[in-house]
Amino acid sequence: MPHRQMVMQRARGLEWVGPTHVPMLAIAGDSAAGKTTITRGLVQALGGNRITSLCSDDYHRYDRTERKTLPFTPLHPDCNYLPIMEQHLQLLALGQPILKPVYEHATGQLVRPILVEPGDFVIVEGLFPLWSKLSRACFDVTAYLDLPESIRRDWKVRRDTSQRGYSPEQVLAELERREPESAAYIRPQRAHADIVIRFSPIPGREDRDEPLSALLLLRPTIAHPDLGDILGSDTRDAIHLKLLRDDDGKPVDALHIHGYAEPEHSREIQERIWAHLEVDEPLPDSLGVVGEGARSEPLAITQLILLYHLIQATQH
Amino acid sequence: MPHRQMVMQRARGLEWVGPTHVPMLAIAGDSAAGKTTITRGLVQALGGNRITSLCSDDYHRYDRTERKTLPFTPLHPDCNYLPIMEQHLQLLALGQPILKPVYEHATGQLVRPILVEPGDFVIVEGLFPLWSKLSRACFDVTAYLDLPESIRRDWKVRRDTSQRGYSPEQVLAELERREPESAAYIRPQRAHADIVIRFSPIPGREDRDEPLSALLLLRPTIAHPDLGDILGSDTRDAIHLKLLRDDDGKPVDALHIHGYAEPEHSREIQERIWAHLEVDEPLPDSLGVVGEGARSEPLAITQLILLYHLIQATQH
Repeated sequence: MPHRQMVMQRARGLEWVGPTHVPMLAIAGDSAAGKTTITRGLVQALGGNRITSLCSDDYHRYDRTERKTLPFTPLHPDCNYLPIMEQHLQLLALGQPILKPVYEHATGQLVRPILVEPGDFVIVEGLFPLWSKLSRACFDVTAYLDLPESIRRDWKVRRDTSQRGYSPEQVLAELERREPESAAYIRPQRAHADIVIRFSPIPGREDRDEPLSALLLLRPTIAHPDLGDILGSDTRDAIHLKLLRDDDGKPVDALHIHGYAEPEHSREIQERIWAHLEVDEPLPDSLGVVGEGARSEPLAITQLILLYHLIQATQH
Repeated sequence: MPHRQMVMQRARGLEWVGPTHVPMLAIAGDSAAGKTTITRGLVQALGGNRITSLCSDDYHRYDRTERKTLPFTPLHPDCNYLPIMEQHLQLLALGQPILKPVYEHATGQLVRPILVEPGDFVIVEGLFPLWSKLSRACFDVTAYLDLPESIRRDWKVRRDTSQRGYSPEQVLAELERREPESAAYIRPQRAHADIVIRFSPIPGREDRDEPLSALLLLRPTIAHPDLGDILGSDTRDAIHLKLLRDDDGKPVDALHIHGYAEPEHSREIQERIWAHLEVDEPLPDSLGVVGEGARSEPLAITQLILLYHLIQATQH
């Protein structure tokens, strides 16, 4: 926090004012990486009246028709009002309302803006929340969704054909066209996340009808719950914690939650993490809902860790 | 300035940063009071690349269709995003860009917002720029257009029937409907202006084909150019300065510019006011243009006084 506060204070003439600071969570990641699913469960956990969620896709600078004549995709910074996104993140962190632009995914149009007033907590998910030092400084906890490309491709085809009116061929061609800008502008945000989240099947179990497993890299950039007390490092356990080196050689705690983890076991772990917060409220039971009644324990624990940090940010 | 700076610093966690302060002029007044005409000449005088002008009508909260079901008119504060307007005024004063909402008068619709970056100067005209202490604190000079109601009615009927698709009966009915809110929310802003501007015919000369005269009440809230050196107080002079009490009993300098003032005389006065600024640029010749080649010396001098204050604000 002290470092982030200083970044804010140097930035652009806007000042961080202690008492009005609103705890904020960023969930960055490429298109169709699962950001909305994670966010939805967190909003349900705390209630829509207490938590405000927004998507940075709304800061698209051009509509779908205009983009056809432009040499870049929505993954390019110039295709977005990123300085305005940064400004709005700062204002929300200061407890101020914003008039947020609105991009309609169904039609590809930019429409009239809407008033957004920060609740007790703010979640910002999208392509660019960790884009700049200034934007990162607005958050108490930052996550990056690092899905294997093959799974993300499947998810994106399924969603964009069913909800956004594209054909599968169009989605695949668009993914191809976006690849260089994803590499240049989206994936580098992984380096700036406190938590890197990777959902994937366990090798050899791809064909089983079970939720994807989760690997959470917990970087020592923020104070994580003390999982060493709760979990062992035996990789045969469905939920375990291991000390690893990340791809960049830096040390991380790697929390594995296998898709076949038993709900009772998962619940026990969640209760113990939750107890660390010493809050009066019970552990929310909306965590882990994938849709249509299906549950995922890896998702539940992922959401709980994020929720832990949001609530912890109110306690300083 | 020092007082205004303090107001800004107390306000909402946003801080006034000295070097990035952008000189700002407010032109408040009711609908069809001539705000746009005054603004246009000022923008031409300094050039659209140096001056940014915006209209606070864009902060309407509801579109024309929605307003039909609501118990108030656009003159009601609740019909506008005034806290967002205040926020945007502060950001512009700090040299920051804004994503400004857009209300289309021709269609009555709210459409996608646009990026506005402050130039060397900013003019904000509209119904509400002097609405709150915070909004007023953003400006270096504030003006209120206090047109006689009969003239304003004629102007509004002419404009709204030709440009906004209304019938004369609709415009008059709307004026009737707006009257209580104009009295409650718009006209009180007059009290907070550094300059009150009143265009009107001289009694007995209403039928002559000459521009309206102007009466400028110059309140001692800012440092006006020293007109005592330039002008006498003889009311038979086409341009003269008199010490008066305003309707509220407070002392003001009243600058009269009669519609029949000779262009040469007006020009001489303007040159002498301009010389006070000690700038290298010549007196702009876009001042006083009413449209289609017609000129008004009262308008020219009014615009010059406003321009004087904008430029003076760069010299502190």
